[in-house]
Amino acid sequence: MSDKITIALDAMGGDNAPAEICKGAHEACEKYDDIEIILTGDTERIQSCLTPHDRIHIENATEIIDPDEHPANAIRKKKDSSLRVAMEMVRRGDAQGCISAGSTGAIVAGGVLVVGRIEGIDRPALGIPVPSIEKPSFMLDVGATVRCKPENLLQFALMGSVYSRKIMGVESPEVKLLSNGTEEIKGDDTVLAARDLIEAKGNLNFGGYVEGNDVVFGKCDVIVCDGFNGNIALKLAEGIMQGLKSLLTDEVKGSLSAKAGLLLLSPVVKKLWARFNYEKYGGTPLLGVKGAVLKAHGRSKSPAIVSAISAARKFIAEDGTSQINREI
Amino acid sequence: MSDKITIALDAMGGDNAPAEICKGAHEACEKYDDIEIILTGDTERIQSCLTPHDRIHIENATEIIDPDEHPANAIRKKKDSSLRVAMEMVRRGDAQGCISAGSTGAIVAGGVLVVGRIEGIDRPALGIPVPSIEKPSFMLDVGATVRCKPENLLQFALMGSVYSRKIMGVESPEVKLLSNGTEEIKGDDTVLAARDLIEAKGNLNFGGYVEGNDVVFGKCDVIVCDGFNGNIALKLAEGIMQGLKSLLTDEVKGSLSAKAGLLLLSPVVKKLWARFNYEKYGGTPLLGVKGAVLKAHGRSKSPAIVSAISAARKFIAEDGTSQINREI
Repeated sequence: MSDKITIALDAMGGDNAPAEICKGAHEACEKYDDIEIILTGDTERIQSCLTPHDRIHIENATEIIDPDEHPANAIRKKKDSSLRVAMEMVRRGDAQGCISAGSTGAIVAGGVLVVGRIEGIDRPALGIPVPSIEKPSFMLDVGATVRCKPENLLQFALMGSVYSRKIMGVESPEVKLLSNGTEEIKGDDTVLAARDLIEAKGNLNFGGYVEGNDVVFGKCDVIVCDGFNGNIALKLAEGIMQGLKSLLTDEVKGSLSAKAGLLLLSPVVKKLWARFNYEKYGGTPLLGVKGAVLKAHGRSKSPAIVSAISAARKFIAEDGTSQINREI
Repeated sequence: MSDKITIALDAMGGDNAPAEICKGAHEACEKYDDIEIILTGDTERIQSCLTPHDRIHIENATEIIDPDEHPANAIRKKKDSSLRVAMEMVRRGDAQGCISAGSTGAIVAGGVLVVGRIEGIDRPALGIPVPSIEKPSFMLDVGATVRCKPENLLQFALMGSVYSRKIMGVESPEVKLLSNGTEEIKGDDTVLAARDLIEAKGNLNFGGYVEGNDVVFGKCDVIVCDGFNGNIALKLAEGIMQGLKSLLTDEVKGSLSAKAGLLLLSPVVKKLWARFNYEKYGGTPLLGVKGAVLKAHGRSKSPAIVSAISAARKFIAEDGTSQINREI
């Protein structure tokens, strides 16, 4: 491995692979001179759309994991898939991190089965910085562990707190559990039991429950939830923003004055959109595995790939894995 | 009971009680001449803010249920609370329906313990018509039954289908389960088991899973989920709309051209807001109990009370309870 930060990038995963993945890799290498990228996948297809760069290499992989495949089976059987090959590089230490815009399930399965869990972490979690009004909150899990035991939520709280402190620079991050109300009597059995575990552990700045409407207002630094709830919440937020955008475009069409209004208002609308575009988060780290494993949005175009690479680069530079390892 | 539709209205529940509740009652009686309203609560306080109306009566109640109280205990102990008195009227048949903007938990507990469950329904569900782009979907449960068994979700699917057909006028409503993806391998254990139950039952127009981002696009007529998920999703949607509104207001302040733009665009913005204001749904019916029991939003002002009364009136006129009873 070179002295650069080396990132394996699954060139075949996602709706816009391999073209936008290759484009993103090139743009990232132009932006950061301390990174090296290894694109995994069909060499010919990659070469056909890649602008060559001396810090971009190709590792051939003949198979592709389909979003509809059973994640764990696919990872086990498709040993020469672009995703598995990228993850094997992390396992062997040939890369410090890997990124894929492919199947979330397969990335999680590969994280556990190929890269391996950090000791003391039973299940991994996908975390994202949630756009919000006051300050971004770090929310986890948004889709790695569909249904959680209270112990999993405790571990997510610990990992989220480390991430918020070390990567997002929050001094003493306040951690809250996502629930159906803020009163102590709220919560389902798992959330209630997780609350007791976190309070008993006593080493977190724990603030109790946060409810859905406060997520947007940045009422805490770390929001802990299971992967089922987190996935639905994140996608709902995405859907609302997409819906508003398409409705606004439609409504304005018929009216000259509305068109003029939108033009005058466009700097503000662009600012809001940039801030609340839930698709723009780039790379979501899979926390709890022995390496920087990041999931990029399935619809990622090159800017999203660049921002996933940027997130992986930061995670590796700050040594996120060791930080979590130390705290657990 | 008169030949009018008689609705008991908890005058003491919610953030703006009793003034806005009384105002809403009066406005509704002006709007609909086939209704009669019985306000339950502190007679003196009600009289001090009520504009008298010959179809509005007062039933005195000396106690108030606090949002922080344990719902079932409060309903059991506070026999003379405004909420319990309203529900007793439904139980006795002195009113066909009741509405409260008070504690959701207490309304659900009262629905079960005072009004009583429909035979064949194990747990009730709160349902709302979700604002969406294509057509409104009816979503349940949004907070009555925090954690559900597969059988509960099946019953919600049946009740939601009846409501969509009989109250919302959809001919053959397509029912979907809210999940973390549309593929068959998605879903947690409960959702998976519910899917099997619904398919085995075979009498519903069942479309599989709907994911978070499609909720907004009206991809089905009935969305079934547990009360924990539904509550978080609904509140998140509310929070996003509130957040965007307050950010837009803030951002526009500093710029004259943006102000002018917003003014020109205001008809469109108002239209979008009216359509996507998740707080505006008025009354959410508690399905599965023997009577029209509706929860109004805690922050309800008089227009929201009028729309809750309008929803209760429609539910009673269409005989929603018997419709569900017949299908179960």
